[in-house]
Amino acid sequence: MKVLFAAPSKDWASWQPALEAACPEIELHRDGDPASFDALIYAPGYPENGEILDFTPFTRARVVQSLWAGVERIVTNPTLTQPLCRMVDPGLERGMTEYCLGWVMRAHLGMDLYAQDGIWRGKTCPPLATSRRVTILGMGELGRGLAAALRPLGFRVAGWSVSGRPVEGIETFAEADLPAALARAEILVALLPDTPGTRGLLNRETLALLPEGAWLVNAGRGTLFDEADLLAALDAGRPGHAVLDVFSAEPLAPDHPFWSHPRVTVTPHIAAATRPETAALIAADNLRRAMRGEPLRFLVDRTRGY
Amino acid sequence: MKVLFAAPSKDWASWQPALEAACPEIELHRDGDPASFDALIYAPGYPENGEILDFTPFTRARVVQSLWAGVERIVTNPTLTQPLCRMVDPGLERGMTEYCLGWVMRAHLGMDLYAQDGIWRGKTCPPLATSRRVTILGMGELGRGLAAALRPLGFRVAGWSVSGRPVEGIETFAEADLPAALARAEILVALLPDTPGTRGLLNRETLALLPEGAWLVNAGRGTLFDEADLLAALDAGRPGHAVLDVFSAEPLAPDHPFWSHPRVTVTPHIAAATRPETAALIAADNLRRAMRGEPLRFLVDRTRGY
Repeated sequence: MKVLFAAPSKDWASWQPALEAACPEIELHRDGDPASFDALIYAPGYPENGEILDFTPFTRARVVQSLWAGVERIVTNPTLTQPLCRMVDPGLERGMTEYCLGWVMRAHLGMDLYAQDGIWRGKTCPPLATSRRVTILGMGELGRGLAAALRPLGFRVAGWSVSGRPVEGIETFAEADLPAALARAEILVALLPDTPGTRGLLNRETLALLPEGAWLVNAGRGTLFDEADLLAALDAGRPGHAVLDVFSAEPLAPDHPFWSHPRVTVTPHIAAATRPETAALIAADNLRRAMRGEPLRFLVDRTRGY
Repeated sequence: MKVLFAAPSKDWASWQPALEAACPEIELHRDGDPASFDALIYAPGYPENGEILDFTPFTRARVVQSLWAGVERIVTNPTLTQPLCRMVDPGLERGMTEYCLGWVMRAHLGMDLYAQDGIWRGKTCPPLATSRRVTILGMGELGRGLAAALRPLGFRVAGWSVSGRPVEGIETFAEADLPAALARAEILVALLPDTPGTRGLLNRETLALLPEGAWLVNAGRGTLFDEADLLAALDAGRPGHAVLDVFSAEPLAPDHPFWSHPRVTVTPHIAAATRPETAALIAADNLRRAMRGEPLRFLVDRTRGY
């Protein structure tokens, strides 16, 4: 099959060998006649001249396989009529779970109470995980993966999603129950995609529902809240601390107030990276399914936006 | 049964109700004729005049139940001939597991690479846990508990103990294999008691076997290494960072070099606290066993020292 690698050239060195290893029958090209390609592998930043990709001439393409989990930069492209699939990379999922678990533990243990200032603060052990309430916003693959890692440690985990679909072993909240999901969240982990429904979901009104001193970990998308709203909410102590990995504009400007805020921790969009070795297997599987006319995996629902 | 509460008076308020709730038949006293007591509940710091407790006149006592997991301050008392039991509190074990897991995650994720200095360091994701090697020194209840928490996250866990007794699902090293256990330890967690065999186990020679930049987490006892040795080893980069919760002298002096060392994190002996609610159940069980002449749980082996 003939496939266009519609991704920035910096991605070629890592993806080309991984895709060819995962899919020996692939003919991977970086340009060519659009009508000749059976499929596209896509990542934001293509084409590199900054133009918006016109999918219209890819008349033969049976699938556009994204290399990114987030598809908000392509799903709104009006020329895209071919089936679009998100990347759901098991390596990315594991990395995301590990990042979120690490910050949940740091919040839970109160690590940041112990400044290295020569003051022996004595026995002030945190409660055990069995009395710590964690709420996860977004119960897709990532949210469910985190819940599965937190549960055996004893955390009292709840998950919020639009559907409120039950997840075994945890409390679940549906769209309208957001206030209750927030009110219990001593630690709130947001793993939501960027969609019209999630933009500004956290705002002055909803953040005020958090328990005082709650921790917010946002590893989904930066559009979840307006930045000024979050800064005002931090000043009001709800949340008491924010760990932010994603931002409306990246890289975050060097003089952005998040960098210097004493109760904000910025990480540079490192919570999860797609790993070519594992992700190429997912892409290869979908390319083959497309060629055979079989159902595609992780097909994007255009009405939901993810 | 008549029991002497041989612990500092500051402990009375939390332990007395917990012990009486767990063991309604207990008659708990804070003083009285030594020959009249069936058992002692013991914690270091008793008697409060600083004298060493003479166990000789407690002729009727069938058990000395420690409220602490570490018994190094009592096991060497030559007057102690009664059976001595350590406290193995499930609440303490959970707390210790959570503390160690939290610091393992912080080390694993490289959280401390991301200074809040306005510099966007970009995509430098850590390896997944499945390629991270953690070695645990000490495979008693605490070490096994930590291993059980790390394994489902995918970490490559190994355990070292004097016996080298196999533990399901992890690699185990016996006493003589300490060099191999250290050489693989990207993250080294020490959960060893204070015994003649563990004092100075980590020294210039053994620390030099660690991989460059390894993290050391010591939540066992402060006698595991000589402090000057550790400082010299840190300067040599093996370990690259030390998280220390226990010290030869506590509280750690305000001008101790550990406080100001950029690659040392001091926590004030908070990794694990005995929780009266759960620990009193263990003490009550042992008191009843002693009265009935049944085998005691967590009986200290005087030759091992724990």
